[in-house]
Amino acid sequence: MNLKTYFPILDWGRRYNRQTLTSDLIAAVIVTIMLIPQSLAYALLAGLPPEVGLYASVLPLVAYAIFGTSSALAVGPVAVVSLMTATAVGRLAAEGSVDYTSAAIILALLSGVMLALMGLFRLGFIANFLSHPVISGFITASGLIIATSQVGGLLGIKTEGHAMPDLLMSIIENIGQINGHTVAVGFVALALLLWIRLDLKNWLARFGVPKGPATVIVRAGPVLVVFLTMAWSGLLELGAKGVSLVGQVPQGLPLLTLPSFNLDTVQQLLVPALIISIVGFVESISVAQTLAAKRRERISPNQELIGLGASNIAAAIGGGYPVTGGFARSVVNFDAGAATPAAGAFTAIGIAAATLLLTPFLALLPKATLSATIVIAVLTLVDFSILARAWRYSKADFAAVALTLAGTLLLGVEIGISLGVGASILIFLYRSSQPHAAVVGLVPGTEHYRNVKRHKVDTVPGVLSIRIDESLYFANAHYLEDLVIAQVAANPGLTDVVLMCSAVNAIDMSALESLEAIASRLKDMNVRLHLSEVKGPVMDRLAGTDFVAHLSGQVHLSQHQAMLAIAQHRLAAADADGTQKSAGRAPQQAATHP
Amino acid sequence: MNLKTYFPILDWGRRYNRQTLTSDLIAAVIVTIMLIPQSLAYALLAGLPPEVGLYASVLPLVAYAIFGTSSALAVGPVAVVSLMTATAVGRLAAEGSVDYTSAAIILALLSGVMLALMGLFRLGFIANFLSHPVISGFITASGLIIATSQVGGLLGIKTEGHAMPDLLMSIIENIGQINGHTVAVGFVALALLLWIRLDLKNWLARFGVPKGPATVIVRAGPVLVVFLTMAWSGLLELGAKGVSLVGQVPQGLPLLTLPSFNLDTVQQLLVPALIISIVGFVESISVAQTLAAKRRERISPNQELIGLGASNIAAAIGGGYPVTGGFARSVVNFDAGAATPAAGAFTAIGIAAATLLLTPFLALLPKATLSATIVIAVLTLVDFSILARAWRYSKADFAAVALTLAGTLLLGVEIGISLGVGASILIFLYRSSQPHAAVVGLVPGTEHYRNVKRHKVDTVPGVLSIRIDESLYFANAHYLEDLVIAQVAANPGLTDVVLMCSAVNAIDMSALESLEAIASRLKDMNVRLHLSEVKGPVMDRLAGTDFVAHLSGQVHLSQHQAMLAIAQHRLAAADADGTQKSAGRAPQQAATHP
Repeated sequence: MNLKTYFPILDWGRRYNRQTLTSDLIAAVIVTIMLIPQSLAYALLAGLPPEVGLYASVLPLVAYAIFGTSSALAVGPVAVVSLMTATAVGRLAAEGSVDYTSAAIILALLSGVMLALMGLFRLGFIANFLSHPVISGFITASGLIIATSQVGGLLGIKTEGHAMPDLLMSIIENIGQINGHTVAVGFVALALLLWIRLDLKNWLARFGVPKGPATVIVRAGPVLVVFLTMAWSGLLELGAKGVSLVGQVPQGLPLLTLPSFNLDTVQQLLVPALIISIVGFVESISVAQTLAAKRRERISPNQELIGLGASNIAAAIGGGYPVTGGFARSVVNFDAGAATPAAGAFTAIGIAAATLLLTPFLALLPKATLSATIVIAVLTLVDFSILARAWRYSKADFAAVALTLAGTLLLGVEIGISLGVGASILIFLYRSSQPHAAVVGLVPGTEHYRNVKRHKVDTVPGVLSIRIDESLYFANAHYLEDLVIAQVAANPGLTDVVLMCSAVNAIDMSALESLEAIASRLKDMNVRLHLSEVKGPVMDRLAGTDFVAHLSGQVHLSQHQAMLAIAQHRLAAADADGTQKSAGRAPQQAATHP
Repeated sequence: MNLKTYFPILDWGRRYNRQTLTSDLIAAVIVTIMLIPQSLAYALLAGLPPEVGLYASVLPLVAYAIFGTSSALAVGPVAVVSLMTATAVGRLAAEGSVDYTSAAIILALLSGVMLALMGLFRLGFIANFLSHPVISGFITASGLIIATSQVGGLLGIKTEGHAMPDLLMSIIENIGQINGHTVAVGFVALALLLWIRLDLKNWLARFGVPKGPATVIVRAGPVLVVFLTMAWSGLLELGAKGVSLVGQVPQGLPLLTLPSFNLDTVQQLLVPALIISIVGFVESISVAQTLAAKRRERISPNQELIGLGASNIAAAIGGGYPVTGGFARSVVNFDAGAATPAAGAFTAIGIAAATLLLTPFLALLPKATLSATIVIAVLTLVDFSILARAWRYSKADFAAVALTLAGTLLLGVEIGISLGVGASILIFLYRSSQPHAAVVGLVPGTEHYRNVKRHKVDTVPGVLSIRIDESLYFANAHYLEDLVIAQVAANPGLTDVVLMCSAVNAIDMSALESLEAIASRLKDMNVRLHLSEVKGPVMDRLAGTDFVAHLSGQVHLSQHQAMLAIAQHRLAAADADGTQKSAGRAPQQAATHP
């Protein structure tokens, strides 16, 4: 076993030098500044005390630095996983209770163990069943739910639920309890954050600030908004005026520990943990691969599973909640020049220091500031263009996206994503159970055979060539039988049927039985059955079967050779007919198998 | 709308004449004689009073005669569906209670409605997902469970459970309560039935009995055993000696009625009803098609769903339980010369008459006789050869069969069949998510391209042709990307890559994105990407996309034309290189699309 496969740090660590150290340190400072308000905000979104967000941004980054393969991926709390955590844990305990926090920690542990196991057993391919259209629809819907869930925080009213109907209802019900001071803080924060994101860079440029420092100032903007609203809150004593503040939080880092296990809780969290693991992995791997491609690096999906698994186990040990690689922060990390996963470890040190220094001041921070941070962060998630693109390309893909989107909005994240995955698999199965098939003829001047309905082709009377455009398996075995028999019935006077198998990638046992049924039906009708262009792996399987042994025709290497052989056979038969009148119909030629 | 489609009786009814009437009447007499002991026995197997089996053999046959399309299919209670009924209903009520019988009736109604709806909405294809190997494994396991469940009846001890472990445990636990008289009756009945089935015909022939009467005597054999053991029971007063008898049953036919609905019961029976519907339909349609093929008749699967649906609704109205087309009795019906579905209606009259006449005598019938009848009937279901055949043909098919068999034996019918269906779908998905691909070259003397590893073929340096043997969809999109990029990386000095798409039957949106990623990677490497042999339906979809619009190479009708075009392009490029030194690398040719 190669240790470097499981501990990529052993590989890049040996090449570590002063230059990579400098790059990593600069990137770490920028990402730390960005991560502080986000960590606090996402913890709030998950229904957890804000400091838990900071805890989730320390140990997981160290774990990923040891086990991860992406030089730019920045792990930590992310919006969608925070919403999924709130949904899963909210079913088991009341928000704010000790049980709620323990359940979130157990969720991180379960998710970590599952990811690590999937990595060790090389089950990364499971994530492929979450198609890109489905994940796009899911993330757009999640973004909308998250933004809506923060309306309460911005208005100073209480809201409930993790799907649109509940959220909207609770906003309408409680709209009377709106708090003017909260609205003021919330919307000033929102406006500032929006301005920082959209316009600050241009504004700085107009004042002649060079590009480098300007970028740092823009990144630090959200932290400045945090300090600004904290000061506002302290000076005007907003807490006494009904504005919800973060309040006292325990200072320092938690002791490394795990909450006591409750088997019932574990059981109820198994399915949510699996869904969070897969969604988190798909998000993270796509970010990692996008960034790796830009630098011509390679990401190992199975090792990434181990890396994310270790991160989540570390999150649980450090008192955090489920984490994954985030898109926005990874891009920032990448742009800031992070050269190795060590940048993440340095970020962890930065966050740990901030946790120690910052917590005394957090008491004054209005929650509305964090709500504004979340709303700005998730706006980039919402993207309806996937609906239009899917509609144009394929109605089946559109159906899967639309179902995921509507399901997530109306019924919540877990049901929504499950509906999407289920629908895309069912669509695939349904499609392959009703395969396309074409009667083919020769494209003149070539040895190439194509659909008679689409191309000008030559056919031979009495010979029917059918190309079946699907692997033959249990779900389409009967369909195949009906299709071939119907085609034969529609073409009286046939002597030969050729099944062109260029698109048949597998034949399972049910399909073999259908082929045998077709062969026997055709034998009864005195029609010979041939196969052409059977692929190697398929022929390997068929070779030993009775079906091929008793085939009335032959198996031909190519469709063209099949047609030549049939023509020759007819010539020979006509010859025999001429010289030996009594022969009548051409004798069945013994089958030979190339 | 054509009424005849939904009421096939309107079609065959018009051609009905004296000859078909005679054939149908003869068949009806033979099937009636066969059906009486079987109906009693299967009801007992379902945990129901024996007369319910008779009720289930009257109205359903009339309903099938109106709606069914098979001239030979004989519907009624069958072994596997009876076991499935016992499993489903046994969870809700105690055997022998009124609730138990009502639940069985509701199950028939639900199953009937589901089948009829599936037929009306043309959803018959759903049954295709129950593959033949899976159903074979399931029926073998069910046969074993059923035979084991009757051991108690033959020994006079009580047994419990509907899966092997429970059954065997309860036999071992209660073996002490064995009753000598029951054992005597049971094994005499068993021996007689076995002798009737295996040897009576030869024995009669030896005594010079002509073949016709001999067949009728053999068919009537089980009824004779019923009368014989009834007489034995009456003469020796077996009831007083601890032999379990059928006991008093209500005389006559039940009033047409439905039990009161309990929404909770309905909800708990929905899934079992669906499984019973699909299993029953698959069994029935395969019998109907086998027999129809022998007479060159056609069966309409969707109309069969309506026919079976009507039969089950009729079963519920007539106080019966779920029914379907049985193999043994349909073969008997066919052999006896049943010419139209009217034979079934006549059988119904026969059973109704028997119900009226026979019930007073049933009180004396030992249940051991019925157990013996069941054991003999299900012996034909047990067939392990499917395991060997599947093992030889494909390990994947074997896995599905073995899982179904073991799952059904150990965990019961519903879990067993669900495991089988689930496993076969997962195997199909897994296989298609890791597609076979081959580098191809030209078979000398032809225009045909095949795998370089299997055939002696010619390749062109600098050109890599890859044939992908699978539809491209979300589950293999990433795999495709890795595969192509790995192949390109392994072949330095490439100028052109051709993806031969003869086996690509669909490209979904996720796969399109992967193709775009491949195209952009290859563009970066200065390698042109071509497609060849893209099928009509796939090209229709691709035609409007950016992928084709920005393709660095071209889309070629055939692989051979792709190779010719590349050769020409090189020639032109070499020319340009010679005359115009500054050109350096060949310019990218504008894409043209056939």
